[in-house]
Amino acid sequence: MAKQPAIILIRPQLGENIGKAARAMLNFGLVDLRLVAPRDGWPNPDAGPSAAGAGSVIDSARVYETVEAAVADCTHVYATTVRDRDMPKPVVSASEAAKQMKVLISGGEQPAIMFGPERSGMTNDDVALADTVLTIPVNPDYGSLNLAQAVILAAYEFHRENDTSPAFQPAHPEGLAAKEEIVGLMKHLEDELSAKGFFRSEGRKGTQVRTIRNLIQNAGFSSQEVQTLRGIVKSLARGRPE
Amino acid sequence: MAKQPAIILIRPQLGENIGKAARAMLNFGLVDLRLVAPRDGWPNPDAGPSAAGAGSVIDSARVYETVEAAVADCTHVYATTVRDRDMPKPVVSASEAAKQMKVLISGGEQPAIMFGPERSGMTNDDVALADTVLTIPVNPDYGSLNLAQAVILAAYEFHRENDTSPAFQPAHPEGLAAKEEIVGLMKHLEDELSAKGFFRSEGRKGTQVRTIRNLIQNAGFSSQEVQTLRGIVKSLARGRPE
Repeated sequence: MAKQPAIILIRPQLGENIGKAARAMLNFGLVDLRLVAPRDGWPNPDAGPSAAGAGSVIDSARVYETVEAAVADCTHVYATTVRDRDMPKPVVSASEAAKQMKVLISGGEQPAIMFGPERSGMTNDDVALADTVLTIPVNPDYGSLNLAQAVILAAYEFHRENDTSPAFQPAHPEGLAAKEEIVGLMKHLEDELSAKGFFRSEGRKGTQVRTIRNLIQNAGFSSQEVQTLRGIVKSLARGRPE
Repeated sequence: MAKQPAIILIRPQLGENIGKAARAMLNFGLVDLRLVAPRDGWPNPDAGPSAAGAGSVIDSARVYETVEAAVADCTHVYATTVRDRDMPKPVVSASEAAKQMKVLISGGEQPAIMFGPERSGMTNDDVALADTVLTIPVNPDYGSLNLAQAVILAAYEFHRENDTSPAFQPAHPEGLAAKEEIVGLMKHLEDELSAKGFFRSEGRKGTQVRTIRNLIQNAGFSSQEVQTLRGIVKSLARGRPE
């Protein structure tokens, strides 16, 4: 498996939150969970149920007494905060941290992302061990981000940075209708409309036809949809069944 | 207030999850919550406590009987899924959707992001009302994203797209030490090292000095840190107090 950031929870209080953090990690493929002095000891029976299928992350979690021990093998450590800590550290967005970690990992380094306890957050001593502060730009008037939510945003950003799926896929992966089919639909509709007297004057017909052709063109129909529409035009145009 | 996407929860099951979704929204400044046919009716006493301070979002939530009614005033609707739905809709990443919504909103449009019920997700009929599928690229081997987590990722992306805070701030916003101070530290250290006989031979001194100067330069010290280091050099260099 390619290297990935370790997720370090410092003095987490609730087993339930550890479980939810594990679930958040696995959602985006992260599995290296480290716990520093969890308040209620370890293992914690509340962690498993909240992990909801991410039990493997809980089972392989490593526990340390100190932050120093948890980061011992790491070469670049991020401290996650939602507020400016005024520490003499560079501060990066979660997105920028993800870009940095991708480069660090490709150079063989081991990054880690630290998260503080639920209520109090990290102490300045905890942050002093970090290379960089990772900040999540929450609503300044609210900013009550819980532990698992902070973890999922960091994990999501790392995953997104390494994700190769396209940012955009067209509506019809099998392709749009060929212009021949589109023009066939246009002409079919125009012929039926002419027969019904839709075009009041030859003078305005040009403009009306152009409006309809643009409308059909811009809709981005597939072949199948053009067939459906031709059936609809045919059905609407014919006389009511006796 | 600038327009922002409406968050539409379709047939949500648990009041607790509605509360958590409200909290996730407010974390990133979103306040327009719409509920379609919540299973346990509305108001739901379980929603408030889980909203943890985001009660204003819960209180102003609007309830609709149908998806059609909930999206009536919206001009561009996203359907959030974690899996490819194989619907004839364009599919975009959450990040791409955020970019699109920023443009749509600046053009006066009202976007909305729909989320399906906890267990089953949206039906194909729900998705048929969407313009675009918003997909969150979860771990294909796990992908158990809960409702509030899906909401927070979409809200985060929208906030991030509109956020003007810098992706990177240097460690010393007050500025690094001027080169005069850096060179002062270098010379101070070199003088003390010379006096202690650190440089064994004049021939190697040039290389050793260059190594030390690079090390000091690259550390990126502030003025204050240079002062601290000069105190340290001075203290180390002097004889032990009698």
